[in-house]
Amino acid sequence: MAQKPSIPKGTRDFSQAETARRNYIFDTCREVFRLFGYAPIETPAMENLSTLMGKYGEEGDKLLFRIQNSGEQAAAPPEKGLRYDLTVPFARYVVQHQSEIAFPFKRYQIQPVWRADRPQKGRYREFYQCDVDVIGSRSLANELELIQIVEAVFSRLGLGVTLKLNNRKILAGIAETIGHPDKLVDITVAIDKLEKIGMEAVKAELAEKGVTQGAIERLEPILALSGSNTEKLDRLAGALAGSETGLTGIEEMSYIFKMVGEPGILSPPAFRQLDVELDLSLARGLNYYTGTIFEVKATGWQIGSICGGGRYDDLTGIFGMPGVSGVGISFGADRIYDTMAGLGLFPEEATVGTRLMFINFGGKEEIASLRLLSDLRSKGIAAEIYPDAAKMKKQMEWANRRAIPFVGIIGEEELANGVVKVKNMQTGEQQDVTPGQLEILIR
Amino acid sequence: MAQKPSIPKGTRDFSQAETARRNYIFDTCREVFRLFGYAPIETPAMENLSTLMGKYGEEGDKLLFRIQNSGEQAAAPPEKGLRYDLTVPFARYVVQHQSEIAFPFKRYQIQPVWRADRPQKGRYREFYQCDVDVIGSRSLANELELIQIVEAVFSRLGLGVTLKLNNRKILAGIAETIGHPDKLVDITVAIDKLEKIGMEAVKAELAEKGVTQGAIERLEPILALSGSNTEKLDRLAGALAGSETGLTGIEEMSYIFKMVGEPGILSPPAFRQLDVELDLSLARGLNYYTGTIFEVKATGWQIGSICGGGRYDDLTGIFGMPGVSGVGISFGADRIYDTMAGLGLFPEEATVGTRLMFINFGGKEEIASLRLLSDLRSKGIAAEIYPDAAKMKKQMEWANRRAIPFVGIIGEEELANGVVKVKNMQTGEQQDVTPGQLEILIR
Repeated sequence: MAQKPSIPKGTRDFSQAETARRNYIFDTCREVFRLFGYAPIETPAMENLSTLMGKYGEEGDKLLFRIQNSGEQAAAPPEKGLRYDLTVPFARYVVQHQSEIAFPFKRYQIQPVWRADRPQKGRYREFYQCDVDVIGSRSLANELELIQIVEAVFSRLGLGVTLKLNNRKILAGIAETIGHPDKLVDITVAIDKLEKIGMEAVKAELAEKGVTQGAIERLEPILALSGSNTEKLDRLAGALAGSETGLTGIEEMSYIFKMVGEPGILSPPAFRQLDVELDLSLARGLNYYTGTIFEVKATGWQIGSICGGGRYDDLTGIFGMPGVSGVGISFGADRIYDTMAGLGLFPEEATVGTRLMFINFGGKEEIASLRLLSDLRSKGIAAEIYPDAAKMKKQMEWANRRAIPFVGIIGEEELANGVVKVKNMQTGEQQDVTPGQLEILIR
Repeated sequence: MAQKPSIPKGTRDFSQAETARRNYIFDTCREVFRLFGYAPIETPAMENLSTLMGKYGEEGDKLLFRIQNSGEQAAAPPEKGLRYDLTVPFARYVVQHQSEIAFPFKRYQIQPVWRADRPQKGRYREFYQCDVDVIGSRSLANELELIQIVEAVFSRLGLGVTLKLNNRKILAGIAETIGHPDKLVDITVAIDKLEKIGMEAVKAELAEKGVTQGAIERLEPILALSGSNTEKLDRLAGALAGSETGLTGIEEMSYIFKMVGEPGILSPPAFRQLDVELDLSLARGLNYYTGTIFEVKATGWQIGSICGGGRYDDLTGIFGMPGVSGVGISFGADRIYDTMAGLGLFPEEATVGTRLMFINFGGKEEIASLRLLSDLRSKGIAAEIYPDAAKMKKQMEWANRRAIPFVGIIGEEELANGVVKVKNMQTGEQQDVTPGQLEILIR
């Protein structure tokens, strides 16, 4: 085979440097989730097509990757598909394992998903999702906890973000108040575009969808409400006074903003990388949301939302287990990666591995180096030896290319004197140290 | 949908307890690999069928999961398949990215693979592989390093194992010496079964394959060689004196056994969980091995090999990059899991998450609990609060079911006194502590 091998379009290889940085993001998420009492589950890459079909709309069905039956039945229509997201498999898991689960069930899941989308910049056919959910509790304490988690993740990553909040009940209240409860979906879809296309275009779209001119005139001042989050909610309460659903939504939002504002709930301001903001134009497309909706945008980097989610009241209903409320958010690992790379936010630890490489001279010197290596590793320090007693220059180049910060030399003289010569690869400085000093020097 | 949902046969869901234990194994591997200077790459789940086909024999081709083309081309024959192992994608990666790689290239990879095998006990259609390889160096220092890695992983897991070693060159030397260099594969396949079927059956199989009676008589004493590893190698050197290839193999093995025996190369004996043993009947089926071969068996648990690998001299040749030598091993995560579960070797840390759950009383008490939670989490302690101000009994039951070791109570009285009541869920003991004492008590 003379042709250079390749991978399917829309998929990616991740190099060691890329994997290290991706893992830095995932490990940060995992550690925060753990601190809040969430634990991971894993589901198979393949689901029965009956589990997946009809859950993502007609468009979604087309984007499912179907797997051919193996063996004799290869000609029969496929029965399996690759998972399209982690939400439907999670709902399936909860229903299937309901008797083993202690509800409320707090789980996270970090696994790849596959979509037969047309590949384009920033859109892949295989990508990771990182979902955290609690299911089986209607309490707003869960929303608060997820906000704390979002705050903790981005503060630890050092990535400044704005968390936008809204509530589907407020959107329903608005539709009711302006006299169009029948047009909730159209109104939601239109105002979701407010930031992108502006008020005039939104109004035109609403008119086109059959929303009356009077209703549009009543809507405009609501969307234009300004002030602090609390001020906006107060004014909104006046505007939606006639809608019970709307007022419930406002009450829920008020509670969340009050709790988030309590000292000691989020990280100290000096460390905190999060602003929280009520955004009445936030709608989020997914129709299963019924209460709070979240969306996170990075500060100072144009990339769309990097994290989002909301409350759903009937996710498991599709699998025959109705009335179970949950709330969840999903971190967009690829976009977070691109944003952090773009802003230069990855710390050095996210890429550096080995601290020291020994030059290999073979023989007794090699054995002495190997012994010291065992000792360093037992102290948690990553260290290695060049595998061949090759020319010094070749060995040095390898260390350099891999950005190893220190090179250790145990030659005949050092062996006789019981020392290691250590070269700092950045400054070029060399010094002889005892094995005991070595650990401190290179750590 | 009234029917309870299910997953495709041969696939598995992993619960939180299972995932935690699996991650304990993977994290142990990752940490050891890191200490030895190996870093991870990731490759896509899908590869082009042209990359996969013909690499696993005729049987393997049949076991590939093929993915239907999306959209218009759905009727055309599939062009993509799910990866069958990590070795072929690794070879493809090395060739495709050769200009970006600093050789020798030390990488590990922990990802799932898929095989359309008939599902049965212990054999799945989706399972993880955990491969560590160094490619681009012929030095035996790499073999030694992999043995150190195997030793470190199993010693850290506390799982006693025997590492069996052999060398393909020794097997070739044996075939040469008994006068049947033409029957190397048949001889290899037959003696690989020695442990399972016994000497008489092996001899019968060899005769059936056309190995002469005289050759079989010369083979038998070689396979029966006894003594320490060094003694066996010495005696073998006598027996294979006429085969240059055989003697090279013996030299390689002798070097490895000498180095493994040097003090300070493996973990101290008190901690070490590994025996190393020359096993002349070890052959391993995969035909790409050309030098050292490894196989690890657990002590005191019948499950077959839990880890294995070897040196290959031309893995990347299939993708047009010939003459690159490498050596690698693969840890069998599922079998390691089953063995550790069977022997009861998982430590408590591998499953326990949250250290403390606060009872939720709502109001000011809830806020005080939330503040203390932020403090505990900032110290790395996983802790949470029940999401609803539900009945105490219900909250306690949830903590109990999730095996949370401590429950914290901040009621009206505790709030007034600035203390937390802590209940040890195992002993039932209760005591009031200050926030400062809390961290020490529950850590």
